[in-house]
Amino acid sequence: MQDKSSISPRTQLCALIGNPVGHSMSPAIHNAAFAATGQDFVYVACQVEDVAAALAGMRALGNFRGMSVTIPHKIEVMKHVDEIAEVDRAIGSINTIVSDNGKLIGLGTDGPGALKALLDADISLDDKTVLMIGCGGAARAIAFTLAQQTELAELLMLDIDEPLLQGLAADLRRGTDRNISAQVMSTATLAAAMARSDVIIHCTPVGMHPKEDATLIPAEFRPGQVVFDVVYNPLETRLLKEAKARGCRTVSGVEMFINQAVLQFEQFTGVDAPVEVMRHVVLQELQA
Amino acid sequence: MQDKSSISPRTQLCALIGNPVGHSMSPAIHNAAFAATGQDFVYVACQVEDVAAALAGMRALGNFRGMSVTIPHKIEVMKHVDEIAEVDRAIGSINTIVSDNGKLIGLGTDGPGALKALLDADISLDDKTVLMIGCGGAARAIAFTLAQQTELAELLMLDIDEPLLQGLAADLRRGTDRNISAQVMSTATLAAAMARSDVIIHCTPVGMHPKEDATLIPAEFRPGQVVFDVVYNPLETRLLKEAKARGCRTVSGVEMFINQAVLQFEQFTGVDAPVEVMRHVVLQELQA
Repeated sequence: MQDKSSISPRTQLCALIGNPVGHSMSPAIHNAAFAATGQDFVYVACQVEDVAAALAGMRALGNFRGMSVTIPHKIEVMKHVDEIAEVDRAIGSINTIVSDNGKLIGLGTDGPGALKALLDADISLDDKTVLMIGCGGAARAIAFTLAQQTELAELLMLDIDEPLLQGLAADLRRGTDRNISAQVMSTATLAAAMARSDVIIHCTPVGMHPKEDATLIPAEFRPGQVVFDVVYNPLETRLLKEAKARGCRTVSGVEMFINQAVLQFEQFTGVDAPVEVMRHVVLQELQA
Repeated sequence: MQDKSSISPRTQLCALIGNPVGHSMSPAIHNAAFAATGQDFVYVACQVEDVAAALAGMRALGNFRGMSVTIPHKIEVMKHVDEIAEVDRAIGSINTIVSDNGKLIGLGTDGPGALKALLDADISLDDKTVLMIGCGGAARAIAFTLAQQTELAELLMLDIDEPLLQGLAADLRRGTDRNISAQVMSTATLAAAMARSDVIIHCTPVGMHPKEDATLIPAEFRPGQVVFDVVYNPLETRLLKEAKARGCRTVSGVEMFINQAVLQFEQFTGVDAPVEVMRHVVLQELQA
């Protein structure tokens, strides 16, 4: 375990920027990972209002290697970086910035983190019908990643906000060649969609602590369906409990959360992340 | 001892800015001091070219509490902070910035660090004739501090650069009510000045590693004179060795170096610095 006294003029800095940041697990996760791999980095959290100035500072401060970006800055930071991959432009938000000698490269790890969570659980989406409920920021990232990087048969999206829903559907049809469906969510459309889906991905905050009793989805699952909830606090939401009780395979949002951090770590350091160390920190913090 | 895993969203960041910073002892000194006092801070070093952007970043990044500023930015940073004490404006350079909720306060600890080094060695300057050799940046800071904060009888300054010398003398006469003399340095003026001085402060880089054999000052000391060399590498310069051999009391620049860091630490944290811990780190690094 490295201690702070190991910090030298060569130590590289990473920071979370967002507002608020007071309850972030990111410093604990990344510093534990740096220590476990002997990477000479340190990670802090900074509440930020002036995004442009924060990024100008990152550019100017040598050794400032990486940023994690959280709410409300995931969209705004895109204006202030030098390079963004096409998929992240299409998604419209990023959560990671890497400074390559002052040149800022922006990217998103939420979508890839979700896909990795599915793959790590041995869940293939090839030829599957995937239902996404909700189409906010997390959903956009996941939808683009799955549509571009898997051979899913159909991506079926439901939301109560029709303009948002149709906007995402149109963007996905432009940006990928997958079969995309979008329907305004109602009891009827949800029931029909669930009946014909292989994988259900819940992408709204419903069920998150402290309203753990809430769920959007009636417990009418088929055994063998996969249910993935992006909510990670609690670790097992009501949705996942009910799905598991009906014989579904479930994936907790905590796996997506861990993996988005894993992919960030690998961007920051260029070395393989110590996934188990990072998972341990997350689970410890969530259970504390 | 804290380790990096103790870093949380509340941890405050300090950084050295300068160019280059690759051999700085500051991260080791300050992180050891934070650990020893249980202060939730971390300190890194950042090579900086664009000072304005670095300070804009400091302002924007919450938890970015303090900066140490080194060559070549000690003058330029003054333009970008919000408040500077009058003495530091007169000195014309600062080495410390503290962010008070985004309001940047600049100050210098070099002069106070030098004075503290003398006081810690039980050397009073009251009613003494003090000779300063050299009048660059360090000399300006020391001269203003001594002229304002002690009751010295006369401050006698020598340098080969007459405009620089007369400029400093004029600034000191404007800014303090001490008796200030300034003479172009020559064999004769130096010999005469040494003969009538109680305390000799050497403020040029002559004698610094790797040119340890060099000295500006002929070894014509009187027993009981105080000789203070701002050079701290080597710990005992040729000047100090020769002075000690002739029965002088000597003060190494390392004490000024330690104390400028001590005063910075106290500005950053608001708590008393663990001086012995900081001294130990400095001596260990210099002897390594």
